Amino acid sequence: SVEYKRREVIRVTIWNEFYHEKHKENVRALYPEGIHGCVRDFLKCNEDMEIRLAALEDPDQGLPDEVLENTDVLIWWGHVKHALVDDKLVERIRNRIYLGKMGFVALHSAHHSKPFKAILGTKGNLTWGREQKEIMWTLMPNHPIAAGVPTSFPIAEEELYAEPFTVSQPHEIVFGSWYEDGYIFRAGMTFLRDAGKIFYFQPGHETCPSFHNEHVQRVIRNAVHWVAPTLTTDVYDFSPCSSRSYDERKARGEDVSRNARCPLADFNK
Amino acid sequence: SVEYKRREVIRVTIWNEFYHEKHKENVRALYPEGIHGCVRDFLKCNEDMEIRLAALEDPDQGLPDEVLENTDVLIWWGHVKHALVDDKLVERIRNRIYLGKMGFVALHSAHHSKPFKAILGTKGNLTWGREQKEIMWTLMPNHPIAAGVPTSFPIAEEELYAEPFTVSQPHEIVFGSWYEDGYIFRAGMTFLRDAGKIFYFQPGHETCPSFHNEHVQRVIRNAVHWVAPTLTTDVYDFSPCSSRSYDERKARGEDVSRNARCPLADFNK
Amino acid sequence: SVEYKRREVIRVTIWNEFYHEKHKENVRALYPEGIHGCVRDFLKCNEDMEIRLAALEDPDQGLPDEVLENTDVLIWWGHVKHALVDDKLVERIRNRIYLGKMGFVALHSAHHSKPFKAILGTKGNLTWGREQKEIMWTLMPNHPIAAGVPTSFPIAEEELYAEPFTVSQPHEIVFGSWYEDGYIFRAGMTFLRDAGKIFYFQPGHETCPSFHNEHVQRVIRNAVHWVAPTLTTDVYDFSPCSSRSYDERKARGEDVSRNARCPLADFNK
Amino acid sequence: SVEYKRREVIRVTIWNEFYHEKHKENVRALYPEGIHGCVRDFLKCNEDMEIRLAALEDPDQGLPDEVLENTDVLIWWGHVKHALVDDKLVERIRNRIYLGKMGFVALHSAHHSKPFKAILGTKGNLTWGREQKEIMWTLMPNHPIAAGVPTSFPIAEEELYAEPFTVSQPHEIVFGSWYEDGYIFRAGMTFLRDAGKIFYFQPGHETCPSFHNEHVQRVIRNAVHWVAPTLTTDVYDFSPCSSRSYDERKARGEDVSRNARCPLADFNK
Repeated sequence: SVEYKRREVIRVTIWNEFYHEKHKENVRALYPEGIHGCVRDFLKCNEDMEIRLAALEDPDQGLPDEVLENTDVLIWWGHVKHALVDDKLVERIRNRIYLGKMGFVALHSAHHSKPFKAILGTKGNLTWGREQKEIMWTLMPNHPIAAGVPTSFPIAEEELYAEPFTVSQPHEIVFGSWYEDGYIFRAGMTFLRDAGKIFYFQPGHETCPSFHNEHVQRVIRNAVHWVAPTLTTDVYDFSPCSSRSYDERKARGEDVSRNARCPLADFNK
Repeated sequence: SVEYKRREVIRVTIWNEFYHEKHKENVRALYPEGIHGCVRDFLKCNEDMEIRLAALEDPDQGLPDEVLENTDVLIWWGHVKHALVDDKLVERIRNRIYLGKMGFVALHSAHHSKPFKAILGTKGNLTWGREQKEIMWTLMPNHPIAAGVPTSFPIAEEELYAEPFTVSQPHEIVFGSWYEDGYIFRAGMTFLRDAGKIFYFQPGHETCPSFHNEHVQRVIRNAVHWVAPTLTTDVYDFSPCSSRSYDERKARGEDVSRNARCPLADFNK
Repeated sequence: SVEYKRREVIRVTIWNEFYHEKHKENVRALYPEGIHGCVRDFLKCNEDMEIRLAALEDPDQGLPDEVLENTDVLIWWGHVKHALVDDKLVERIRNRIYLGKMGFVALHSAHHSKPFKAILGTKGNLTWGREQKEIMWTLMPNHPIAAGVPTSFPIAEEELYAEPFTVSQPHEIVFGSWYEDGYIFRAGMTFLRDAGKIFYFQPGHETCPSFHNEHVQRVIRNAVHWVAPTLTTDVYDFSPCSSRSYDERKARGEDVSRNARCPLADFNK
Repeated sequence: SVEYKRREVIRVTIWNEFYHEKHKENVRALYPEGIHGCVRDFLKCNEDMEIRLAALEDPDQGLPDEVLENTDVLIWWGHVKHALVDDKLVERIRNRIYLGKMGFVALHSAHHSKPFKAILGTKGNLTWGREQKEIMWTLMPNHPIAAGVPTSFPIAEEELYAEPFTVSQPHEIVFGSWYEDGYIFRAGMTFLRDAGKIFYFQPGHETCPSFHNEHVQRVIRNAVHWVAPTLTTDVYDFSPCSSRSYDERKARGEDVSRNARCPLADFNK
């Protein structure tokens, strides 16, 4: 039988609404090639990643079929242009994730992006406020996404994102954060939806240098590995059908390979 | 301070597409007053439940504002008419659940209903097949939804609903089922979405007498209690806002009671 | 068939090592009848609870068979006398919880108590430090244990208990806390072990008045309801045995009622 | 800063009570070099694993300090000799796992082994019965432990291990199984205890050829990768201490590197 091999290369697409960087001097100073360009720069040292950039104003909003169908992990940053993202694109993204063909990493204000809300099933509301001191705490130190990340690290200035976060129950709360003003936040969480793996991470306001923080970078690199599909079959790509009809349909010459059939038959193989 | 009291009465609305019962003799024979009527009959012995019926062909598809706004738990049964349910109604249902004001119990083929898919974030696909013997197993015997339910009980004939079930990761798998043809199914699962509590339960094909099974009835009664809201505040009913703006807005005389403000201020009260 | 009824009365036993209150003036001033006495005082307004006190120096360390066998929920407070608790008592407590016959509420420094560590499977280590300002945040507002508890509430002075908390993965993280010194903590967590339900809650250092805080009191009252058993059968009280031997053993006249037998036989009843 | 690197080689120790193979002809025929020898044979194709065998009758029961301290993943098979395993060895195993320095894979009848019960906090009781047809179902197809494993696969003959399984709440239920006699089982589960990762898998009775099944082999290989530590610091290897005492202790020249200190100080670095 064919031996399973993890895909040698993870094809990563980094999507950015890419608006602030073009219109605000202070943001451009921090991220001269855009936030997506910055993320690419710290991911590209990973030899097992093949990276592509995409932005809202690109043709097909940066994600035409040939790009999306060749993406293993989609990273998303958006903030003030959520409403412009095409609903059909959202549906295509969601389907690919649900089928386990693509993982999703939502950064910072992506908590209110259309894909995040549609994939998770959430309103994604949270408390927000002024930039301030944040301390990031690792709650699950032996989780692969926390590999190499210290027990805690300071972020000198980040936008307050805080509880109550009306997000749906996470699978795992890997990181939690402390804020100067008395708030806490479930800052790094995994979610599983259908066959898809999702990670949300809090840091990354456009006026803050968090994407230059080595620990934030490490978390995002680890997250790309964690959400990358390990599914090797098309198990979830089926139309609901009847096991009863299996033999009839096979007799008609239809492709029934991905449909239900009586597993007891396997004993006779 | 005002003492918390669990709401004395749980206002339950049972929604049914109510189609098969009108058009198929064998279904009407099993459920002469509709599946929703049958569910009402075994719930009404619970003195703490106030029950209302709703059907697809009722005005406003059975759920006008004055009904939905006065529903604590919504039970849903649908099968062949999913597509007719109004998208705006789905959105109203979802919002009420996300705010923690209403729980949701999805029965059988509701796995493919619009509300179930929208609330959970799932395609809800599963394997299905001929009616056959099913054995329901209790996996979490000390879960409130399993109270009074035996370790296992037989269902002489139910439609096969089986793995792979492309449902999003459940919070708890309370029941699992065994089928004659070699399949298993995560048959009773809880989900948490934003502040809402949801329960899915497998039995209930329209041509099978499962809703007359005493154990199925007990599970549904227990589930109504479990998904019923315990939230006593409007904590999740906020518009995202800035803690920074709290003082300014208060100064302008705006209602800021449900918005973020510095929790450190509480130390001075 | 007999209708399931929730036990009318929950029999609660509050266990306290009861040392500091006898030897330190400042502790006695806060808790003149002991911490267990204080907990009793705010629980006894619940008409559905029947409360008993137990202390380390009582005969049989406060938990002879006739007490333990008639306890539905055991609340535990211990701090400097953990080592004196008898290992056989720990084993009896653990067994009763594992069988789903008793729930367990661990308060504050009970994180290092023998029962907590044995029940959960954990070393229970955490970071600790000086008394300081703590803010308690509700992360799951629609969880029954959070009913009536505000989104956040201040605790003017509590001992620092903080991450990293080497506690085993919780089932649910209901509350999280913020500390003045830059720490956070998973402050209120549920755990499920075999058929038993467990809740841990952080506040309650002997020199702090937290047990006089109305919100802390509400959380503990809610927790008693949540961990109370709902199991109505002896399903888990079995000796492992063979389904194969069922018929033979029945033929010998043995009681096989709680043992495995072929569930397919149920179809013929 | 030093870049995190996953350990190149995972040091795997396979422990077997190694009794049946020496005393029963039919077992020896299936596993001439012992079950541990068979597991070694299908793991050794993984170039990233360095494998060692250990058995109950070896000096120090096969796990002297120099072996245990150099083991990243411990695989355990035991059945009738559980009681002979030394309690101090169990404690050493448990500590290493809790510290996140070693993962644990429990095979088949290891559900009743001392290490499994001590690590998890469980009685580990389950229903058992005659050898029969089992069908293994993959419930989480995109979980790394399920990589390359089909949706379902038949096992022509395995010992019945079935619900009710009084095991503590799993973190994830990756596989479920169906049995001819009407039973189901949570057959492949992950658990997280303190910083340790654990996997339990059902197949593997000594008189059944399950360890020669290619899918069973794949699951075990994947599990070794999944439970292997990713922790890169000694974060959990601390003695509980006071942040208050940090400066004093530092002043005394003590090593405080792994102890609590005020994270706010990190902002001034």
